[in-house]
Amino acid sequence: MPNTTKTNFPVSNIRRFLEPGPIVLVSSAHKGQTNIMTMGWHMVMEFTPSLVGCLISSANYSFDLVRNSRQCVINVPTVDLAAKVVKIGNSSGRDIDKFAEFGLSAKPGKQVRAPLIDECYANFECKLVDTSWIRKYNVFVFEVVEAHVATSPKYPKTIHYRGDGEFMISGAETRKYRKLFRPGML
Amino acid sequence: MPNTTKTNFPVSNIRRFLEPGPIVLVSSAHKGQTNIMTMGWHMVMEFTPSLVGCLISSANYSFDLVRNSRQCVINVPTVDLAAKVVKIGNSSGRDIDKFAEFGLSAKPGKQVRAPLIDECYANFECKLVDTSWIRKYNVFVFEVVEAHVATSPKYPKTIHYRGDGEFMISGAETRKYRKLFRPGML
Repeated sequence: MPNTTKTNFPVSNIRRFLEPGPIVLVSSAHKGQTNIMTMGWHMVMEFTPSLVGCLISSANYSFDLVRNSRQCVINVPTVDLAAKVVKIGNSSGRDIDKFAEFGLSAKPGKQVRAPLIDECYANFECKLVDTSWIRKYNVFVFEVVEAHVATSPKYPKTIHYRGDGEFMISGAETRKYRKLFRPGML
Repeated sequence: MPNTTKTNFPVSNIRRFLEPGPIVLVSSAHKGQTNIMTMGWHMVMEFTPSLVGCLISSANYSFDLVRNSRQCVINVPTVDLAAKVVKIGNSSGRDIDKFAEFGLSAKPGKQVRAPLIDECYANFECKLVDTSWIRKYNVFVFEVVEAHVATSPKYPKTIHYRGDGEFMISGAETRKYRKLFRPGML
């Protein structure tokens, strides 16, 4: 498991952890109900403001919690949580309390009421800033307003979903090409 | 390098290669000009039709080629092409012919005029189907209309950008959790 000691992280830099494309856990809360969903369809959209586009199917219990509260937390799990991530994606908040069922710790956020999942490597507190593609595509645009990232390891072993029950694991191998970049392109 | 023998692949299943979040190469052509750009901000949006959302900055030479031709090819490179991928992202089609400069082979598509990059593991022929967020966010929505995927290996070693000149490599390690999935959730 990653070190769960976390530090505040610049929101304009959360691409470090989202652009590589890991599966994430979205936690939400509204009117006394909380939930967690597993999400694979997301992309970074802007550095400043720190925007992330996400697809949350209207079939998910989290859809209304996020849409009505206009908030969520995007949590980045590592490979040690892989089986839980799958179980979270294969159960519904209509039937169970996922924090209790899967032994995860809800921690209060600083700027949102949705709970952070303490066991995850990173937690990004998000506010819903664009609802115009929710009806059309189930696409939500969030602004990350506060980011918490584990102090170690530098390269978390994240899990990347391929469909069909299979995940790729990244983080064991890295490549650095700083010298090939033009100034301002890093 | 992956086997460049490719087979037709079901477009509804291209999540296999895009959902894990690799950096991709976008190739385009319009009025006698072609280009290639490196792109990290994309997400799967729907299985059928096979939709992909992408962010192409208006500062890129490819922006007008893609917007005006309403087509592109999304190519998935593997780790053997990593240095070229970086160089492609750090040069401009205003100055050079990237196919010639980087020794890449342009192959004709079946349904689009944009060229496929033969050295890549997968090539997804795309048509622009929604322009409504181009002005607002530089977000393009493409429908993948034809997909070509290398016959081996099953798990390509793809490259995932973290910013700051660093990439995570995935594909060496996989995890399978089919038994934890509910029917219909794979």
